[in-house]
Amino acid sequence: MIRSAHNGDRYELTNHAAMAKASGFLWNQKMMIQVTCRGYATAQFMQPEPAKYVHAPNLEAKTFMQPEQNYYAHHPGRFVYVKDEETGEIWSAPYEPVRAKPDRFVFSVGKSDIQWTVEKDGVRVEMNLLLPTEDVAELWSIRVTNISNRKRKTSVYPFFPFGYMSWMNQEAEWNEEVGGIVASSKTPYQKAEDYPKTKFLKDKTYFLCEQAPVAWEARQDAFEGEGNLHAPEALEAEYLSNSDARYETPTAAVQYRAELQPNSSEEYRFLLGPAFDEAEILAMREKYLSKDGLAQARKEYEAYIAAGSGCLKIETPDKDLDNFVNNWLPRQVYYHGDVNRLTTDPQTRNYLQDNMGMAFIKPNVCRDAILTAIGQQEESGAMPDGILLTEGAELKYINQIPHTDHCVWLPIALEIYLSETGDYDLLDKKVKSLHGDTHTVFERFSRAMDWLLSSSARDTRGLSYIAQGDWCDPMNMVGPKGVGVSGWLTVATAYAVNLWADVCEQVDKVDTANRYREGAKTVNESANRYLWDGDWFSRGITDDGVTFGIKDDKEGRIWLNPQAWSILGGAASSEKIKKILPQIDSQLTTPYGVLMFAPPFTAMREDVGRVTQKYPGQGENGSVYNHAASFYAWAMYTIDEADRAYSCLRAMIAGPDEEDLLARGQLPVFIPNYYRGGWGIEKFQRTAGRSSQLFNTGTVSWAYRCIIEGLCGLRGVKEGLKIDPKLPKRWDGIKVSRQFRGATFEVEIKRADVKSVEVILDGNELDGTVVKYVKAGRTYRLDVQIP
Amino acid sequence: MIRSAHNGDRYELTNHAAMAKASGFLWNQKMMIQVTCRGYATAQFMQPEPAKYVHAPNLEAKTFMQPEQNYYAHHPGRFVYVKDEETGEIWSAPYEPVRAKPDRFVFSVGKSDIQWTVEKDGVRVEMNLLLPTEDVAELWSIRVTNISNRKRKTSVYPFFPFGYMSWMNQEAEWNEEVGGIVASSKTPYQKAEDYPKTKFLKDKTYFLCEQAPVAWEARQDAFEGEGNLHAPEALEAEYLSNSDARYETPTAAVQYRAELQPNSSEEYRFLLGPAFDEAEILAMREKYLSKDGLAQARKEYEAYIAAGSGCLKIETPDKDLDNFVNNWLPRQVYYHGDVNRLTTDPQTRNYLQDNMGMAFIKPNVCRDAILTAIGQQEESGAMPDGILLTEGAELKYINQIPHTDHCVWLPIALEIYLSETGDYDLLDKKVKSLHGDTHTVFERFSRAMDWLLSSSARDTRGLSYIAQGDWCDPMNMVGPKGVGVSGWLTVATAYAVNLWADVCEQVDKVDTANRYREGAKTVNESANRYLWDGDWFSRGITDDGVTFGIKDDKEGRIWLNPQAWSILGGAASSEKIKKILPQIDSQLTTPYGVLMFAPPFTAMREDVGRVTQKYPGQGENGSVYNHAASFYAWAMYTIDEADRAYSCLRAMIAGPDEEDLLARGQLPVFIPNYYRGGWGIEKFQRTAGRSSQLFNTGTVSWAYRCIIEGLCGLRGVKEGLKIDPKLPKRWDGIKVSRQFRGATFEVEIKRADVKSVEVILDGNELDGTVVKYVKAGRTYRLDVQIP
Repeated sequence: MIRSAHNGDRYELTNHAAMAKASGFLWNQKMMIQVTCRGYATAQFMQPEPAKYVHAPNLEAKTFMQPEQNYYAHHPGRFVYVKDEETGEIWSAPYEPVRAKPDRFVFSVGKSDIQWTVEKDGVRVEMNLLLPTEDVAELWSIRVTNISNRKRKTSVYPFFPFGYMSWMNQEAEWNEEVGGIVASSKTPYQKAEDYPKTKFLKDKTYFLCEQAPVAWEARQDAFEGEGNLHAPEALEAEYLSNSDARYETPTAAVQYRAELQPNSSEEYRFLLGPAFDEAEILAMREKYLSKDGLAQARKEYEAYIAAGSGCLKIETPDKDLDNFVNNWLPRQVYYHGDVNRLTTDPQTRNYLQDNMGMAFIKPNVCRDAILTAIGQQEESGAMPDGILLTEGAELKYINQIPHTDHCVWLPIALEIYLSETGDYDLLDKKVKSLHGDTHTVFERFSRAMDWLLSSSARDTRGLSYIAQGDWCDPMNMVGPKGVGVSGWLTVATAYAVNLWADVCEQVDKVDTANRYREGAKTVNESANRYLWDGDWFSRGITDDGVTFGIKDDKEGRIWLNPQAWSILGGAASSEKIKKILPQIDSQLTTPYGVLMFAPPFTAMREDVGRVTQKYPGQGENGSVYNHAASFYAWAMYTIDEADRAYSCLRAMIAGPDEEDLLARGQLPVFIPNYYRGGWGIEKFQRTAGRSSQLFNTGTVSWAYRCIIEGLCGLRGVKEGLKIDPKLPKRWDGIKVSRQFRGATFEVEIKRADVKSVEVILDGNELDGTVVKYVKAGRTYRLDVQIP
Repeated sequence: MIRSAHNGDRYELTNHAAMAKASGFLWNQKMMIQVTCRGYATAQFMQPEPAKYVHAPNLEAKTFMQPEQNYYAHHPGRFVYVKDEETGEIWSAPYEPVRAKPDRFVFSVGKSDIQWTVEKDGVRVEMNLLLPTEDVAELWSIRVTNISNRKRKTSVYPFFPFGYMSWMNQEAEWNEEVGGIVASSKTPYQKAEDYPKTKFLKDKTYFLCEQAPVAWEARQDAFEGEGNLHAPEALEAEYLSNSDARYETPTAAVQYRAELQPNSSEEYRFLLGPAFDEAEILAMREKYLSKDGLAQARKEYEAYIAAGSGCLKIETPDKDLDNFVNNWLPRQVYYHGDVNRLTTDPQTRNYLQDNMGMAFIKPNVCRDAILTAIGQQEESGAMPDGILLTEGAELKYINQIPHTDHCVWLPIALEIYLSETGDYDLLDKKVKSLHGDTHTVFERFSRAMDWLLSSSARDTRGLSYIAQGDWCDPMNMVGPKGVGVSGWLTVATAYAVNLWADVCEQVDKVDTANRYREGAKTVNESANRYLWDGDWFSRGITDDGVTFGIKDDKEGRIWLNPQAWSILGGAASSEKIKKILPQIDSQLTTPYGVLMFAPPFTAMREDVGRVTQKYPGQGENGSVYNHAASFYAWAMYTIDEADRAYSCLRAMIAGPDEEDLLARGQLPVFIPNYYRGGWGIEKFQRTAGRSSQLFNTGTVSWAYRCIIEGLCGLRGVKEGLKIDPKLPKRWDGIKVSRQFRGATFEVEIKRADVKSVEVILDGNELDGTVVKYVKAGRTYRLDVQIP
């Protein structure tokens, strides 16, 4: 039985084991940490490339963040062993590594901290993790309370293993000067020219103790002995053995003797983090390692998080949705926009979408990101595969592989920014690029659209080349010869160009607008001519001229993106939409959301590519890929398909129901990048719906937009706020508080016997549905009636 | 208490836990496996680059083989759980993962198999690992015997976890067709152009069972449940749950019910290995998975190993030495020469030394290697950093970093080859290089020596440039600017050139010989002028003109190599040698061998390089680096310092005594590349002498040569076999059986009241000490009297 509870802006899980991978995450500008309810943790920090301060037990590959992280006994984690000094019995909080069944267990994920409360045999351990706002460190409080009615003699052993740091020079020992265990290492390198890059890295990891422990262990072997992690041999002795590590796996375990009267507590505070030298460690201790220091850090961090609380509070019949949208969704959008997934070279596509969500939270961040991105536009008008954010950053991993869709995301991000801010002045700003050429934003966007429409980007049929990928990274073999085309990118090009035409109209460049409209129309004609398969649009045509994503395909038969974007971009006529939607319902819609495509590939298809080599139903191979689902949800709002849109969003946010979501490993505190597909296929049924646990996803900007502009229908236009809610049919009404251009809109939306949306503004009937001349600082009261 | 025993050509260890890392290894042409006594294993195979078929629990970095491997609960291993079906108690063989104390434990490392015998609670488990000669697979027999006096009901669960195979498409299930658990995955790649390289990789791992089990588990999570590896939850049930893995960590566990009468046994056979497809798996099953199949494979593999048993059997007062030299040392030489450390691009230095040892085992292999190496000589006469052995091989890792010493190893390898074979015809062979130019071997060697003596390799003072390293790879910052010089390489150049002059003399090219002698002399004069520090030779002079490895240095004060090689190459006069040797004794000689240098560096020295960033006393930073020690031992034989040579060799082979060696983690079945240094320095004392466990080392060719040509003094010359034994002073005599140019020499060496070596050949006094006109097939009886 899984028990859980929303508690204001916290989420509490009260099952210790079933949710093995259920996790929460915290971040600041320089680091992030994801922790599971059982105590495992994955943390990284920027120096400036992603690095780790605690490690796996072996030499781990450097790679991008992985979905469905695998955990194992020696996976990095943060633990507290408790020994009853009278009985010798041990257990550990939160659950790993001893895995003793607790009497009470609460994993409580807050917006700005993560807590556990674990009780066993009359002792309560509370663990609290906080991050500072500016620095890289974990701030830990651990409180041990005697909840029995007799005096207790215990030893308490916080255990924060460091793992295998490096094959160069790892050691660890208690450092009296800084009051903690300090491990040293060198980041490995072989070429002399790489040395300067490693010279100033933070190669030390420290675990600082506010209170001096009675004993410590800095060597993993000495701690474990023959007992392994579930029963470390070091705990059998009266005291830990004060062992150092000399080119041996370092660890941090410390021992406190706590003699506790009934209802009395001891509280310990610790800092864990990386540092360059002892001076830095001492400075961190000085700043944070005290009750006041932690309280101050908490205050600052809460303020930092509060600054990202978004522009919307809703009250709907769906309490799970309310909770997620009011508390967690803007937080996840903020994370993406504020730290760009902690990369130095985000994919252009990701960078623009992660930042477009910031239009709802901190519009200037979105503005700056648009300028940064367009400032790296190539001279041809094309956009590069990644945007470099720090000096010395390089395009890595997937960014070394040519994708053709990056220009598409420019007008999409801009549309949201302009809607939210009305800041059309941005278009006149001159931007000098990395390559030395200078153009206004308007000119740069036009050049990007020109490139999309040009023969560099489209073949003689008018279809868009895919090269080694479009939005779908691993669709890398459709067009490597430069011939294959993307069905999605073709209809997405029309969408992007039409959005840009809208902007041109708004700034009264009617001729320009018409020219782009004409371009989009031509694109859509090509799409209809070459890609329409009778009931849906195909996904593309390979280098060898094979159209795929069609009725005749046994696998990868129907793809969501070409359908959603043909609706957005105008390729799909209303007659075609009527054919498409039932196909999406029947072939792609599952209890866990709308699939990216179906059926999943079970074997390599060499003319499609790597996407077909992922596990069927996992990641890009036919899962409920929430990013694609979020496009679809938005498309549904644009054609008044409110129920389809809502169902799609509801599944990604809280599953068919919350208990089911938890059973699939997902706490409703973030949207994962996917839920496994394969629903209804015997071989994959057991794992269908499972959460990827990966909180990096372009989904969230779209999901937030869908709620704000779609469901609530409170969308900016140049003149003001347009009111056009799209509630699910069975809802009678909702209440919304919306921040918009500095003003507050208190909105009550109700079903009524009206033909179209009618708005009462501060008691007076509004002419039309746009509230114009919005004044910053004012509060508007809207009563909205919808059919 | 550690108990152990030699048993003919096996080595048996009878302590289950103290020797946590004690290990043995097996190899064939395509794979190698190193297993610890506790059951952990590290295996790799060539396809053609090194790859793994079982994996760590996380995404592991690809890297060269690491010394002092770290083990942890989920490290790959091969285990057998045993459950008493009446009591429910479980334990595991060999020791991990349950770590229950066995009643009896034997880890028995053979030359051609590895066995365990483990008894607990009246049940014996025998595990036997064998490799086929040609194919990549592990052939396992597991026998379970009731050694109690009552009937026993047990379940036996072989458990061979596969680990985290890939983030692309991993799954596993029981495959009825092949009769085993088959895991599938795709080697990850991102760039389309990398796909063809991965397409035909053996991405499946199979665990085949000769006898059908009653149940199985293919998913690690399902096997462990909440019990972790020490008490897997799956073992609590009557039967394993037959769980598949779908993009979850795969594993292989199978269950047998064994009802055993007293003294009765069940034997099970298994195959573990990688495959491309099911057809390959079926073929492997057909070939190996039967009693007869295994017996045949064993026979063939034993024959393969026997072919590498070397040219020497000794009987000396030192039984540990005898055992090692007669059984294990040639096997390790054979491994190096036969498979080149399982790399496709061995460092030129390693390639030549690994193969020079083959002169004593399979001389044609050495011959071919010399031709292969010289066939990749650059047009300048220089040698490349690595030798490419397979089509498509590339210089990787350290081979991308310029080192300047590779030419030196040519005449060294040649000297041993010519001594052993007298095959001077080799010199006339024409070799067309990769670069298209054709020269005879003689010309190519001359060109290499010319290069060493040229201004490309030496500065105006006549000292040899070091660039980013010489023999010592991580001495990478002495000369990156192209100015710094190597003291060792300077004196080594003289040695190499002198060796080449010797060869020139042997083929009657006296003028040429004199020219090279003159060259060597000049080099040695430079060495004496610029590198002599008063009591020893310095290690080099940096780019900035700083001489290091000198009295004034607090760390890295004296280095072994410049001393050993100045003796070999003639730079050190006998007066200087008299100063050097006591310094080596007092500063470098420890109970665990002779240090590479002392004192170790405790902090980065930026004008020396990465060597100073290894852990002090670990690897190249001042350990007993056996390769350097083996040069020193050889140098000592060349100047009749038999005791120093013997002590040095004895320490590397069997430590101060065997029990001590075992305590440092080393079974005397191979020489590790280093023993940790730091002996006598408080901070490092605890770990001093610890074995690296890494069996890849250039040491072994030299060590074997030292025993054959030095200690036994049975060294080839052009005319025949020269007799000049160098026994330690306290030895009265030894017996030797030596294979040489197809003949057998039965030699008895005794101390006698003689002035110089006197030889009785088949009862007749020999004129001089060279047995000439050696006839293949003949047996010679030598009685040798030494002073």
